[in-house]
This record gives sequence, C-alpha cells and structure tokens, in this order.
Amino acid sequence: MQIDLNSDVGESFGAWTLGDDEAVIDLVSSANVACGFHAGDPSTIRRTCAAAARAGVRVGAHVGYRDLAGFGRRFLDVAPAELTDDVVYQVGALQALARAAGTEVAYVKPHGALYNAIVGHVEQARAVVRAVVAVDDSLPLVALPGSAVAAQARAAGLRVVTEAFADRAYLPDGTLVPRTRPGAVLHDPVAVAARVVGMVVEHSVTAVDGTPVAVDVESVCVHGDTPGAVAIATAVRAALADAGVRVAGFV
Amino acid sequence: MQIDLNSDVGESFGAWTLGDDEAVIDLVSSANVACGFHAGDPSTIRRTCAAAARAGVRVGAHVGYRDLAGFGRRFLDVAPAELTDDVVYQVGALQALARAAGTEVAYVKPHGALYNAIVGHVEQARAVVRAVVAVDDSLPLVALPGSAVAAQARAAGLRVVTEAFADRAYLPDGTLVPRTRPGAVLHDPVAVAARVVGMVVEHSVTAVDGTPVAVDVESVCVHGDTPGAVAIATAVRAALADAGVRVAGFV
Amino acid sequence: MQIDLNSDVGESFGAWTLGDDEAVIDLVSSANVACGFHAGDPSTIRRTCAAAARAGVRVGAHVGYRDLAGFGRRFLDVAPAELTDDVVYQVGALQALARAAGTEVAYVKPHGALYNAIVGHVEQARAVVRAVVAVDDSLPLVALPGSAVAAQARAAGLRVVTEAFADRAYLPDGTLVPRTRPGAVLHDPVAVAARVVGMVVEHSVTAVDGTPVAVDVESVCVHGDTPGAVAIATAVRAALADAGVRVAGFV
Amino acid sequence: MQIDLNSDVGESFGAWTLGDDEAVIDLVSSANVACGFHAGDPSTIRRTCAAAARAGVRVGAHVGYRDLAGFGRRFLDVAPAELTDDVVYQVGALQALARAAGTEVAYVKPHGALYNAIVGHVEQARAVVRAVVAVDDSLPLVALPGSAVAAQARAAGLRVVTEAFADRAYLPDGTLVPRTRPGAVLHDPVAVAARVVGMVVEHSVTAVDGTPVAVDVESVCVHGDTPGAVAIATAVRAALADAGVRVAGFV
Repeated sequence: MQIDLNSDVGESFGAWTLGDDEAVIDLVSSANVACGFHAGDPSTIRRTCAAAARAGVRVGAHVGYRDLAGFGRRFLDVAPAELTDDVVYQVGALQALARAAGTEVAYVKPHGALYNAIVGHVEQARAVVRAVVAVDDSLPLVALPGSAVAAQARAAGLRVVTEAFADRAYLPDGTLVPRTRPGAVLHDPVAVAARVVGMVVEHSVTAVDGTPVAVDVESVCVHGDTPGAVAIATAVRAALADAGVRVAGFV
Repeated sequence: MQIDLNSDVGESFGAWTLGDDEAVIDLVSSANVACGFHAGDPSTIRRTCAAAARAGVRVGAHVGYRDLAGFGRRFLDVAPAELTDDVVYQVGALQALARAAGTEVAYVKPHGALYNAIVGHVEQARAVVRAVVAVDDSLPLVALPGSAVAAQARAAGLRVVTEAFADRAYLPDGTLVPRTRPGAVLHDPVAVAARVVGMVVEHSVTAVDGTPVAVDVESVCVHGDTPGAVAIATAVRAALADAGVRVAGFV
Repeated sequence: MQIDLNSDVGESFGAWTLGDDEAVIDLVSSANVACGFHAGDPSTIRRTCAAAARAGVRVGAHVGYRDLAGFGRRFLDVAPAELTDDVVYQVGALQALARAAGTEVAYVKPHGALYNAIVGHVEQARAVVRAVVAVDDSLPLVALPGSAVAAQARAAGLRVVTEAFADRAYLPDGTLVPRTRPGAVLHDPVAVAARVVGMVVEHSVTAVDGTPVAVDVESVCVHGDTPGAVAIATAVRAALADAGVRVAGFV
Repeated sequence: MQIDLNSDVGESFGAWTLGDDEAVIDLVSSANVACGFHAGDPSTIRRTCAAAARAGVRVGAHVGYRDLAGFGRRFLDVAPAELTDDVVYQVGALQALARAAGTEVAYVKPHGALYNAIVGHVEQARAVVRAVVAVDDSLPLVALPGSAVAAQARAAGLRVVTEAFADRAYLPDGTLVPRTRPGAVLHDPVAVAARVVGMVVEHSVTAVDGTPVAVDVESVCVHGDTPGAVAIATAVRAALADAGVRVAGFV
C-alpha cells in the first residue's frame, strides 16, 4: 500500500521566513511550491525546488490569488480570463526555476482562498482548468473530491488527484469543518497520525459527530506552515511506516 | 540587405494602458514583451504575445528590476544571485504565456535601468547571463555593443545580438548621449528614419559633434512607448523599404 | 440653488497616466484623490492635491482595496479589522500629502469594488466607518443613498453626503443598472447634462423603463477616467450654469 | 545620566512575522515603526503603535524605499522629488494609525539602504529632509553623526538626534565596519551591553584595532529583528541600570 503526502512549502518572501521547508520536504513526497503571487520570491522558489530535487520529492505549482498582503487567503473576485492568465504566469515562472534547480513541475495545486473558491465557484474553477490545459495538459491537478474544479478538470481531460487533509475535522457529509469553528484544526500529532492511517488503510475518517466518513483519495495534505507542522508530519510518516504504508508520489 | 527592428511592448498594467502595441508590432520584427516586474500583467502579456504571433513577429523577454512604481527605470542594487532568479522567473512566466498564445520566447533583452546597469556593472551583467544560461542557453541576448553584458554573454557561450538606437543621439566614442542632456532623444520621424538607413546601409551614424561613428549591429531599437512612436516606426520602416532593406528577425 | 460635483482623480501610477486630472479638477468642486492602494503613487497624489488647491477644489480620500493589478475594481474579502486599518493608512497618507500641497482632506469616498461592496456588506461597511471615526470623525463620508455604509455612518455619528451618478442608468427602484448590462453607462454629453440638471432641479431622474425616480442628493459624481469624461463634465457644468445652478462643495 | 534606546519594530507583513515586537518595545524608549514600504502592513503598524502607547514608548516613522521584496535593504536610485513624496506618504500613513492607537509620531528615522544612502548621497538626504519639513518641521530626525542627512537637516532647521549602534563594530575613524566584513556585527549580549555603557558613560567605544573612538550621541540603536535581539536588549538595559543610567526618550 502507498500514499502521497503533500505539503505547502516555499512560502517565505524576501526577509520573511515561513515554515521549515527543508524538514518538511524530507517528510513528504510532493512539495507544493508557492509561485510568487501569494508568497514565494524567485530565490526562495529556486532554493525550495533545489531542496525538493535533492530529496527526490516532486514539485507542484501552488498557485494563488495575487495578494501578498493577504497571503492568498482572501477571496478575490478576479475575472476568469485574468485568473487563467495569472495561473499560467505562475506555473511558467515556477517551471523555469524548477528546471534551473534540476527538477520540473509535476502537478498544480491551487492555494488558500483560490482552493476554497473553486470548490464551488464554477467560473474560477474553469479558469484554473483552462490555465493548466494551456500550460501543459499532462499536468495533474490536485483537488478536493467532489469539488467544481475536479469536475471541470475531468471534463477537460485533465488527470485529477484527490486529496484529504490530515489535520482537519470532517463533517458527516465528508466536507471540512470551516476554520471559523472551534475544533476545525487538529493539533495532536498522535491523533492526526492515527487519522491518516485510517484514511489510507481503512478508507475512512471519523467525522465530528462520530460518524464514519468514506475517504478515497490519492494524496493527503499535511500542513507545513503551522506550529508543530514538522512534529505532525513526522508522526504521520512514522505511523504510516508502522502500518506498512509506503509514502510515494501519486502515480 | 536586411535588419531586425525591435521595440518594447506589453507595457500596460491592469487598468493602465501604455503604447499602441498592435500598431507597433505590425512595424517591427522583434517584440520585447514586458514580463511583469516593471510592467505587464499576465493578460496584457498574453494578448501581446498573441498579437506578435498573428503578425509573425518574434517575442523577446524584456526583463527588468522588480519595480512597478518606477517602471524599472531606477537602478536597484539587487544581489546578483537574486537578480538571476528574478530574471529566470520572468522569462519562465513569459514562456508559458507565449506558448499559450501560440508562440515562444525567442530572445532576452533587459529593460530600462537594468539594461543601463549591465553596460558596466559586471556582477549584475553576469547575473543576467546566468539566468539566460539557466533557462535556455540557446536564447540570444540583445545587448549594447561593447557592454559588460555582451562580453559576459559571449564568454558564457550565449549568442549576442548587438543593437543600435534609432532615436538616440550618439557621442563620438559610440556611446549614447545621456538622457539627462538636451538633444539626447530625436523626435523627427524623417531624421530618425534617415539615421536608421545610414546605420544599416552605411554602417555609420553621425555623432552630436558631426563625427561619423561606425555602427555594426544586427538590430535597431525603435521606441514603442513615446509620443510619436508609431509615426517614427512607420517612417523608419518606409525609409528602409525605399533603401531596399528588408526588415526581418535576426538570424 | 447649488450642487457639488465630484470626480475621481489622481489615478495615475508611476509611468502610467490615467485621465486628464487638470481639466477635470477645473470642472468639479470635489476631487476624489486615489490613495495608493488601487491607484495613485505619492508624487501623483501630491501633484493632484496641488492642482485641487490651486483650483479651490476640495480633496477627498478615495480609498480602495489593496489591488493595483485590479485597480480596486475586484471584490476582496478582507477581514473588517484589516480593512479599517487599510483605510486609516490611506487617509493618513493622503492627509500628509494634501498638507504638503497646501490643502487638506475634506471627506472620504470609497472607490470601485469597495464602494459597491459596502452598499450591502455590513461588516465591511462598518469597517470603513470605523476607519473614518478613528482618523477624524468630522470627515463626511460620500455614499450611495440607502446603502449599508450610509446607515452605519449615520449610526456612528458621521456626516453622510449622498450622491447620484451623472452617467449611469437607473432602475425603477432607484438603484443603478449593473455595469454588466447594456446601456448601464450613458455616453452622450448632452443627455447626461440634461439628466444632471433634472436630478438637481427636479429632484428626479428617468429610469430605464421610463419611470421617474426621486433623487435627493448633495453631490453628483461625474466620471473622470472614461473616454469623453472631460466633454461630459464640461457639458454638465454648462447645463447647470444655464439652469442657474451653482457648482460648489457640499456644506 | 540618561540615554535613549531605539529599535526597529513593526516589520511583520501579513502572514509573515518578524521579531518579537512586544518584548523589544518593553526594553526601549523609542520604537522605529515600519511604514509599509519596506515592511509593515497597516494592522501590524496599528498593533505596534498600540503596544508602544501601552508601554509609554515613543513612536518614530521608520521610512524606507518602496521595496518589500528587498526589505528596503537595497539601494534604489529614486528621483529626489519622488523620494520626498514617498517619505511624506509613509509618515502620514503612520501618523493616522498612531493616532488611532492613542499615540503620535514623535520622530523620523530612515531605514536600511535609505539610511545608508543618505550618509553620503546629498540629493537623497535633502529629499528626506524636505519630506520631514513638509510633514511637520518639529519632528526630530534620527541620523548617523557626520552624515550628509544630519548636515542637511540642521541646515533646514530640523532637530537632529544622533545615534550609535550597540552591536556594530567601529573603525578607527568612527564609521561602522561594513556588514560584508567578518566581525561587523557583535552577538555577545555581555560584550554589547558593556560597549553601550562605555558609549553612554565614557563617551567612547573601542574600534576594531583597539583605538578608542569618541562617541557623542543622544540615542543608541539596538536591533530588534536579529536572533538574540531580545537577549541583547535585555542585557543592555540591565547594564545601563547597573551603571546608573536611565533609559528615556531623547529630549
């Protein structure tokens, strides 16, 4: 049995450092690298790609809204045609830096508010899909199961890689508990690790009301920029090893 | 006989329009497209690349300092390693948008204060050269004859395309009259056109003191963003045709 | 009889020019000066304030979302506390430049997508009101009649100046025809001028279906950045003079 | 005996945190608050001003080049008139946020590369002085003794507050050892604290070659954003107390 672990990295900017990218990269199989619009200056991006290349970890384009001040976490009502071009720009920039660092962009995963928006915002979802198609239609798109963007991507012939979240609480219908509610994010490494093993081995996770929820994903996202991120990722990795699950990039 | 004409385009940004790109593109053989750091949002870039593709005009990466407020016209003392990454980022972003528009990046030409800096600033010159080598060492670099960047590029094995300026006054030593001096920029389309013909056919231009200065270049830059730019480019184009000179991309 | 005419100015940025500020300022009584977040670099702001001071025209803080690439025309889901601080920052910056130019900030008017958002978005409306209260609670706020921000501002003790739009089509319920619909913006100077006279003298405007709609405002906004803006403002000004209406800042 | 201690704070930006502002503010008498051009978003600025107000610590405008990606640490060849306006803008923005936080701007201190540039760059020095004069000519300017900006400021009638650096090595001529040389920055809290006491009590510091250098300043800068900053400031504060020196804002 095997599973892909993905995490957000390359989110520093200039003098500002965020996360412990080197440590996180050593624990995952897919590194979502910020592309400069919500985080990530060119030198950070290149350094992060080089670290991923050294670790044999895949690089993904973590594309976001053009909003450094908001870290891409605020919905921006950008016109679909402009969003497409913003995403093409970001992926292209990362492609060049990845190549300069001896690796290549292997997938696309939207970030933050854009990720959340295209769960339901069909026009922005389609805009992101069009961008991936325009850049390279062999690039897989990492998405939430059941999201608008997953549907649009499949309709456009893109490979969709669905993911679950290691440290997020689930509602009985399989959606995430909104971050604004208490208990939305889990912080205990042992508990998180056990959940991930359950997701991968039992294809199930326990919702906040105790209901078992079916989980059928190819990747699990472990956060890289929260306090305790490295501890959680370490625990997840160890628990997966104990359960006989290999961590490897999605096929 | 033939000569390449290059011009700066794609310099609009969001709601702000600069220059008449469509008209200029129809008059030149090489379009220097801004890459987002000093000008050029992604949709402007894509639209400009599409216009170049339609016109059969080559697209070059017009890379600059990260300085929207200053339009890349102010020297920025960026560290060489960061400058390299900034340039790789910009070229990569343009490559993706150019491909999405049905064309490709065919050369690199630094913009504004960066262009001026690397005439003499060896470290920044080397940084730009490293960026081109990292992205694609078959990309030619357009540069001022005798500049540090031209020397560094040749030393690194890059193809260097030298250029002259259609509307700039020359000093007897072959350098340009600084923009701060009166008469540095010529505005009369007829005079400019005659100079360009002289540069191409006679390999000579008359300096401000009347001295003839040897000119041996593969490209001539006509400005696209000054008042009267289209009129000047039109006059240059017509005068070259009258002199039997074909306008075509450098080989 | 008298009316205030307000218009958006100071929307250039660096090398990019937008609108004919000098001409527009000479035709209005209140100049909404961009504050740097959606448009307006510091030197543009100061120059615009100086022109307003010379013309005896009042300066207002035209505050917007932090979105240069979108010109503040895209909704941004910024948290209310941050929006308050963003607005305080912008007003303060303008205050200092206005003083340096020999004038002062006399009112606040939100711009673009922020203006539209706070017609109904109560939290962002309250955030803007809090900012004005924090900076100077004697500053009037220019707002759409019936908007959430007008209500919030009055509840907070601010002076509210309501405005109508010279060149926008109205629905029978007194709201504006959305820009996405054909006919939303009027372009004929004569027609626009007649409407403004009707708004001021008859307190009425004809909606798209022919219904008369009551208009009771202290200011009328004439656009400064559209093609034909100066022609329209000139026609409005002349028609008001013919009707015996004085153009003067709101009391 | 008393001395002013100043430190850079408010240098976080959006999701990125830098320094331990609360701890630093409790140890100094003057807080140099970033104004948004090189660091500092509006909410960070307001929060920092509120912390300074609570601690009874003065707020200064830490103005810099418009260069978030470079943290204001890279020389930017901005035209003097534009630099003046950039500085006015920043001080005004801070003034409004400081007032909203219950305090006010009490002085101006340029940051990073701008600070270094105006030691010798007369035109940029004059531009900064003009900005302070335009905003409020009663605001003191914190500057390096012997710098061009100190001379320009005095000539313009501004109050100049000279400062020394707690953790920087000095050359025999009283200038700082450039950061590019080894040993330029001292990291041992005990050694730094002893040096500050010597600067204040003996009016002397030992240069790198052992020479005593005269120091006659009204303020000492302790860095707030380096690793160990809080430990160093704590040690400085304790050593000054032991030596009977009171830490208090300059008069």
